[in-house]
Amino acid sequence: MTKTLSREDCAALDAADPLAPFLPRFRRPRGALYFDGNSLGMLPWAASRRVVEALEKEWGEGLIESWTEAGWIQLPERVGAKIARLIGAEADEVIATDSTSINLFKLLAAGLKLRPGRRVILTEAGNFPTDIYMAEGLAQLLGDVEVRLAEDIRAAITYDVAVVALSHVDYRSSALADMADLTAAAHAKGALILWDLSHSAGALPVALGEADFAVGCGYKFLNGGPGAPAYAFVAKRWHHQFVQPLAGWMGHAAPFEFEAHYRPAPGIKRALSGTPSVLAMTALDAALDLLLEAGMERIRLKAQAQMDLFARLVEQRCAEIGLELLTPRDHAVRGSHLAYRHPQGYALTQALRARRVVPDFRAPDIIRFGFTPLTLAYVEIWDAVEQLATIWREELWREPRFAMKAAVT
Amino acid sequence: MTKTLSREDCAALDAADPLAPFLPRFRRPRGALYFDGNSLGMLPWAASRRVVEALEKEWGEGLIESWTEAGWIQLPERVGAKIARLIGAEADEVIATDSTSINLFKLLAAGLKLRPGRRVILTEAGNFPTDIYMAEGLAQLLGDVEVRLAEDIRAAITYDVAVVALSHVDYRSSALADMADLTAAAHAKGALILWDLSHSAGALPVALGEADFAVGCGYKFLNGGPGAPAYAFVAKRWHHQFVQPLAGWMGHAAPFEFEAHYRPAPGIKRALSGTPSVLAMTALDAALDLLLEAGMERIRLKAQAQMDLFARLVEQRCAEIGLELLTPRDHAVRGSHLAYRHPQGYALTQALRARRVVPDFRAPDIIRFGFTPLTLAYVEIWDAVEQLATIWREELWREPRFAMKAAVT
Repeated sequence: MTKTLSREDCAALDAADPLAPFLPRFRRPRGALYFDGNSLGMLPWAASRRVVEALEKEWGEGLIESWTEAGWIQLPERVGAKIARLIGAEADEVIATDSTSINLFKLLAAGLKLRPGRRVILTEAGNFPTDIYMAEGLAQLLGDVEVRLAEDIRAAITYDVAVVALSHVDYRSSALADMADLTAAAHAKGALILWDLSHSAGALPVALGEADFAVGCGYKFLNGGPGAPAYAFVAKRWHHQFVQPLAGWMGHAAPFEFEAHYRPAPGIKRALSGTPSVLAMTALDAALDLLLEAGMERIRLKAQAQMDLFARLVEQRCAEIGLELLTPRDHAVRGSHLAYRHPQGYALTQALRARRVVPDFRAPDIIRFGFTPLTLAYVEIWDAVEQLATIWREELWREPRFAMKAAVT
Repeated sequence: MTKTLSREDCAALDAADPLAPFLPRFRRPRGALYFDGNSLGMLPWAASRRVVEALEKEWGEGLIESWTEAGWIQLPERVGAKIARLIGAEADEVIATDSTSINLFKLLAAGLKLRPGRRVILTEAGNFPTDIYMAEGLAQLLGDVEVRLAEDIRAAITYDVAVVALSHVDYRSSALADMADLTAAAHAKGALILWDLSHSAGALPVALGEADFAVGCGYKFLNGGPGAPAYAFVAKRWHHQFVQPLAGWMGHAAPFEFEAHYRPAPGIKRALSGTPSVLAMTALDAALDLLLEAGMERIRLKAQAQMDLFARLVEQRCAEIGLELLTPRDHAVRGSHLAYRHPQGYALTQALRARRVVPDFRAPDIIRFGFTPLTLAYVEIWDAVEQLATIWREELWREPRFAMKAAVT
């Protein structure tokens, strides 16, 4: 690709984009070019309207009766069924509940119970921190469980591993794991597998296939809002057998009968624990409709095109910066953000943000640009790269206010 | 008290009520007399405004930068500090996070760790179900822990008890436990004590005193909205020592440094786990201001007066119904709801709701009327009792649609 692209070329891509009608269905921050939907997705207008309705009409007017009249009690299942369509699961295999961290704990504990005699949780050394921390918390509580961190997962799956816990997309490099292959590798050694879909569901079509468990968050690519509910997937073959220790009343077989002892609900509902936030569930519920309407195949196609465009423009216009692309160029093995390494990554990120281009930074030296096709136009990519080129050319990143503080390193 | 009260007497009480100005600061459901603030508090207008601001301005416009710019990251501590003022704790002893169920798990596990060699969690046979369920879930996970249910708690505190877990107010009868006495009794045997304040904080002044742990929910008397965040209290003397197993990234000493291993934050922050819902936190944050402004002493005084009024009117106007008051009449030993037992409790509750009087029902035969002084007028009490008298006199509760379905029993 040697043709030098112009802003007009990018505008032409927008004009031809079948997903362009989704852009105005989100509240677009004034003057900002937002490349951080992989950390916090934009606000869909429909979610805003639905939250106000839940707030004023359902809570304010309906009060306690809204648990039944407004269907609050079904929200975890209803939202779960929508997420199921994004990840290749059946409607009743997924439930929206708690946070990703809490759900990791539930399913890791469930996995250990299903594999008696095996006391190892295997995960990647570079997995997302909270995934490792939750496994460590469970291991410390139980006393006889090892959290094994490995670089080469396939080689590390031994017959003492109860659960292999992996992220589908690496939160730094954006590398996409081979889900089917690793799931088969875990099963070949009699281990269960748990996938964290936080950086893949809503960004690309996910096919859980034979996977046993999955978790994921609601606030990144699902656009559910800050601290949106997370979700848990349990394959149907485990529904009659799995138990999870956070045995709260919402996961009881008869939550309103106030029985003296815990009796797990049938199926995925036993993954529930306490009472979920209705406002948070409502926002996520409404946000998911946009992803379902757009379709994950179309979203993925546009994301790949946008990432290719961004990478090409950086090469054409910012070669002298010396940004090192950590993300694979191969479409088949990358998620929906591009990660660049640069010694001045922090200052560059801060300088971009000062000019209202919003990527994010991961210490010590990684700039991440997230691509969320329902909220990002092609010309915005051109404009962002233009800002990056300007910041470098005019040495704007050298401003003292952009220097990395010791506390952040 | 033999004088027969009139509606005018009640109106006079409202006219003299120093808390009356708080009534219009809540969205009042049209035509409903709401006696279920002990299950779901009303919507403060200020909470509604703040949620819309968090939704549209902070999420919609500020996006990821609102974690710092709008102070989202401090919400659990800020909300916790407000709750601390309601329960006799120091600002940094309380944090808003997760659900009551999840927080129970964290602190029961923390208590077991702090009392090595003791493997009993002691609780009341009639404790709120989720409190028992969570203890059972933890015990099942650990394998060597006994959940001991007792009727007479004092007699059941033996030297093998690690944690005594009690509700401050009985969710059925409204009986108020003697917190100082039971705390001392637990400590005398070397046990720790955990109080569930879900039915007391925000309803009456709570003085945790020497208590070790506490949890409570945000959606009842705190008016934080459906599924509002709960909170956890840990006495400062345990801050350097306690560990809790739900070791998520928000409770890490340096959550944004993405360290390879879990290292608990100092103090109460280590009780955090995953990312909290900002919308839910914001509603609770705003709602708490009204309680703090009104003051718990004034709220408690009015609640007692309202409960006395209700009980007296029921005696004067509904004697023939044969409602049995389960709640103590002594102000010192009751919470902020009145519980009546009646064989037709379910049908009476349904008939009241059909006429827009909203108590709630707890199987098999208890009608609960909650008294929330910031949202309840004295004349509403008169009107509710009038409806109850009418329902009985005209036998309206006999309508087939009010009959208890088998599934509910």
